[in-house]
Amino acid sequence: MIQDRITALRARMEEEKVDAYLVPTDDFHASEYVGDYFKCRKYITGFTGSAGTAVITKDQAGLWTDGRYFIQAAKQLKGSGVTLYKMGEPDVPTVHEFLERTLKEGQCLGYDGRTVSTREASELAEILKKKGAVQNGRLDLVGDIWKDRPELSCEPVMELEEKWTGESRASKLARIRSFMREQGADYFLLASLDDIAWLLNIRGGDIACCPVVLSYLVMTADEVLLFANEKAFPAAVKKTLEADGVRFWPYDAVYAFVSELPAGKTILLCRDKVNSRLTASVPDGVSVLDCDNPTLRLKAVKNPTEVKNERIAHIKDGVALTRFIYWLKKNVGKLPMTELSTEEKLYSLRSEQEHFMGNSFDPIISYGAHAAIVHYSAAPGTDIPIEPHGLLLADTGGHYLEGTTDVTRTIAMGPLTDEEKRIFTAVLCGHLNLAAAKFKSGTTGLGLDYLARAPLWEMGKDFNHGTGHGVGYFLNVHEGPNSFHFRSTPSRRADTVFEEGMITSDEPGYYEEGKFGVRHENLIVCVKDQETEYGTFLRFEHLTMVPFDIDAIVPEQMTERERALLNAYHAQVFETISPYLNEEERAWLEEATKKI
Amino acid sequence: MIQDRITALRARMEEEKVDAYLVPTDDFHASEYVGDYFKCRKYITGFTGSAGTAVITKDQAGLWTDGRYFIQAAKQLKGSGVTLYKMGEPDVPTVHEFLERTLKEGQCLGYDGRTVSTREASELAEILKKKGAVQNGRLDLVGDIWKDRPELSCEPVMELEEKWTGESRASKLARIRSFMREQGADYFLLASLDDIAWLLNIRGGDIACCPVVLSYLVMTADEVLLFANEKAFPAAVKKTLEADGVRFWPYDAVYAFVSELPAGKTILLCRDKVNSRLTASVPDGVSVLDCDNPTLRLKAVKNPTEVKNERIAHIKDGVALTRFIYWLKKNVGKLPMTELSTEEKLYSLRSEQEHFMGNSFDPIISYGAHAAIVHYSAAPGTDIPIEPHGLLLADTGGHYLEGTTDVTRTIAMGPLTDEEKRIFTAVLCGHLNLAAAKFKSGTTGLGLDYLARAPLWEMGKDFNHGTGHGVGYFLNVHEGPNSFHFRSTPSRRADTVFEEGMITSDEPGYYEEGKFGVRHENLIVCVKDQETEYGTFLRFEHLTMVPFDIDAIVPEQMTERERALLNAYHAQVFETISPYLNEEERAWLEEATKKI
Repeated sequence: MIQDRITALRARMEEEKVDAYLVPTDDFHASEYVGDYFKCRKYITGFTGSAGTAVITKDQAGLWTDGRYFIQAAKQLKGSGVTLYKMGEPDVPTVHEFLERTLKEGQCLGYDGRTVSTREASELAEILKKKGAVQNGRLDLVGDIWKDRPELSCEPVMELEEKWTGESRASKLARIRSFMREQGADYFLLASLDDIAWLLNIRGGDIACCPVVLSYLVMTADEVLLFANEKAFPAAVKKTLEADGVRFWPYDAVYAFVSELPAGKTILLCRDKVNSRLTASVPDGVSVLDCDNPTLRLKAVKNPTEVKNERIAHIKDGVALTRFIYWLKKNVGKLPMTELSTEEKLYSLRSEQEHFMGNSFDPIISYGAHAAIVHYSAAPGTDIPIEPHGLLLADTGGHYLEGTTDVTRTIAMGPLTDEEKRIFTAVLCGHLNLAAAKFKSGTTGLGLDYLARAPLWEMGKDFNHGTGHGVGYFLNVHEGPNSFHFRSTPSRRADTVFEEGMITSDEPGYYEEGKFGVRHENLIVCVKDQETEYGTFLRFEHLTMVPFDIDAIVPEQMTERERALLNAYHAQVFETISPYLNEEERAWLEEATKKI
Repeated sequence: MIQDRITALRARMEEEKVDAYLVPTDDFHASEYVGDYFKCRKYITGFTGSAGTAVITKDQAGLWTDGRYFIQAAKQLKGSGVTLYKMGEPDVPTVHEFLERTLKEGQCLGYDGRTVSTREASELAEILKKKGAVQNGRLDLVGDIWKDRPELSCEPVMELEEKWTGESRASKLARIRSFMREQGADYFLLASLDDIAWLLNIRGGDIACCPVVLSYLVMTADEVLLFANEKAFPAAVKKTLEADGVRFWPYDAVYAFVSELPAGKTILLCRDKVNSRLTASVPDGVSVLDCDNPTLRLKAVKNPTEVKNERIAHIKDGVALTRFIYWLKKNVGKLPMTELSTEEKLYSLRSEQEHFMGNSFDPIISYGAHAAIVHYSAAPGTDIPIEPHGLLLADTGGHYLEGTTDVTRTIAMGPLTDEEKRIFTAVLCGHLNLAAAKFKSGTTGLGLDYLARAPLWEMGKDFNHGTGHGVGYFLNVHEGPNSFHFRSTPSRRADTVFEEGMITSDEPGYYEEGKFGVRHENLIVCVKDQETEYGTFLRFEHLTMVPFDIDAIVPEQMTERERALLNAYHAQVFETISPYLNEEERAWLEEATKKI
């Protein structure tokens, strides 16, 4: 089947005089996850992972993906004729190196510029220039041969009332317009879906787990042009949008609109967040002001209403999680349970909560050695029973009208090894120490990350992922620009300073391949601690209210301060969650949150 | 006198059709400290501080300096007609804002481009463009009117043997040439004096406390052109330099040489470290490759010989300092002593050590409230007696053939207030915690700085300087690129990763205006801790071997770990230093380093 598709693609390539065709994973909006319509890379290779790039030439077909997916990709590519390129392995060329080696003078690289960021396109252009090759970014050749391609998603759009958002659309638009004036911008082009949803106080369902609406947006001093499928908008939602100056245009019309902008004007956009075909559409006479989307920081700094709501969302989520952990502990070894069945159990517990709007990401419930696979997600082919020993890792989250949660607990299902306990405790100390930091305004995530890693680094161990990411308000669970990490990379900003109202995950972990995995994750909100003559001091407060499993702790491995931090947190969990539990659950929680 | 000079300058300005004349503090090499020949800003304003910029127009004269110098500058400018602009104070324009307000269309800004960095010159150019004004960077108008201007320094140059440097000149040149080949550079232009001294294994005395040689250097694949005053080089030194392919050119000839580089060639240089007149001399047909000087990282990573020698230098320095502290403690209240007299005492103790080559910077010995002035340096007009109470802060350092030291101790001269003790202890905990960090390769100074500040931040307090800087090997006491700080600024690199062999100061402090100051400073060297499957782990070792004053400590304010760190350090100090002391000194040191 894959071979037939590649044959058909090659025929289209020949018609278009394309010698190599590039198929990234992206949609047209630089989204982290994409809707079914956009899964061209999956269609042409059969590989279903969330990250990867395919390149097809006349006689070669390759798929590049990272370490999370080596095993899965090898399995899925079997017999397809597609070669797996394991990114980061020694002697494996990158996509760019492959193109540089393969393309010859006068040849043409084709791709759909709507799925390639402006940064990536200019890197490709440099390679092609070196080789004397050319490019055509105005093709959708996989789309041309994809007969049963799903429709573009058109899920119904809802308005998010001000009691949830804490700020009216008009006020948000005014703040952006004030920024546009400061920058001397006539237009502001926004293509990232979560920014558009935040700005317009709307939510949709066009990407699984991401309540966004497929759209582009162009703002001027007095208009908002929304390029979207009008059919997705109920009349009442349309009416309130129009009352705030929003005018509807067809989704695809943005390219023509941008190409006809009058000369001499200035357009503000973020090149990393606008696809290359769209930036290429800007006429030469228009100045482009490339900067972070002004929505980025405004969206990240939650207002007092949002923070208040998030605390409520986290109580609801905490009640569901606490019941879940109690249920697991009580029934393991008695009732049959597997990774997938417990996933369903947790979903049903969350569903009992008012205003629950669905999972905020694909849940990761991984037992034993599965938990060492950082991005494991149980499927019918991998699902295993949970037995009354070892560690179960549950990294899950929900959307509520009151906000988005993301929480990881590692739970002792029975007896543990000393190694499991030692690691569980070390990771917990890192988690607690980071959350307890008090720091001066101006501090970045890079400046605090050490706290989370130090207990593992002391042992010569580490975990191979960031320590935390920003989280949206009933929006994308991964949201910039705030984060915790110890190394800066081009894609991770080192210069984002913590501000009151930012919500970030605190999630150190540890993964012992073939054995077990540990991760402890709370969402923490940045609050003001005090203002002195030396400056403003900030700290974090835990939003997540779920006990850490004291059955897995080695108390003597913790400092006095670390034990005090855990005890204080557990006291808060009990006080916050217990009123919503039945007697049996409450008795268990009291024991589970007792002082150590 | 100043008024006469300014009048003379204005006459020259009129002749040259210059409407505003800019006088920075810099020499021609972007040095932190400058020789007497270069002190034009001091000559034209009378202000002697180490930082500041003067601007003279037809009817205005202004001096800009920072908070360290407000009081001194106000005093020194009195009656001169020069207005003091306090940098960073509300409503005080910056130099750039002043120029933008003052300069009119068609007017001309004059300056000596040799004293203005390439970055600064391009910022000035932008302002002038906005205003329709022009610039002339080929003037030295203060030099023109400065009748008794000192000669350019021409102190004798010495060769630093390989037993001190650990690497031959030929090997260093080969490493730079290999970098030049990788970058495709035909020429490498080096103007920073410490880089030149490091590269050629020479030392001089052209800047007080900085053993550098006034020079520029241009390297090709097979030649080294050294633009310097040949008279400074003894015949034997010249001979070894020439044997390694060094050819001498007159100091000033570098501008003409660079202006005649052949078209089509590529020159590598660091725009931040080459003055604007020199970069402006590069002909249009020559490509400029702007990057960090390749010497920067190579110089910062000390080789095993340098590290071994530095340990010896620090033993010598530790012996001198230990004797000094013992002498202070024994004699305060008995012998007369002042800030200046103790400075001399310490110098004489250091001078007793073999291979001592002088102070590595102007010593800061500040008593009581003086210690709250971070850059205080005692002078006959400010010198005060030291009394048997309160804190004395001594931040001093020496050059030895075995390396450069920089150490601060805060010493209880008698009874202290509770506040003094509390702060002393908090700052010490920060110092110890930073020095005890174990961290994974890839960690930057930004990622560890929190450790040093946390105890003060917990109290809502802070100190207003970096936590640490790199230190040269018998070279500049302030050396990049390694450092500790919690906020990145354009002038402080956030991306320098610690490497084995880097030597950095660890110097948190606290300053209570009008009352007291505390700073604890050791030099620490980065060493490998262990290599595991998770990566390379690094840590620091203390080079400085001098006791911290336990008379000023509140032990119960320290955690068990912090006390253990102090006790281990003190045990090491006693073991290392005591063999060099007489019996009386040794008995005192034993008591001073006892377990707390």
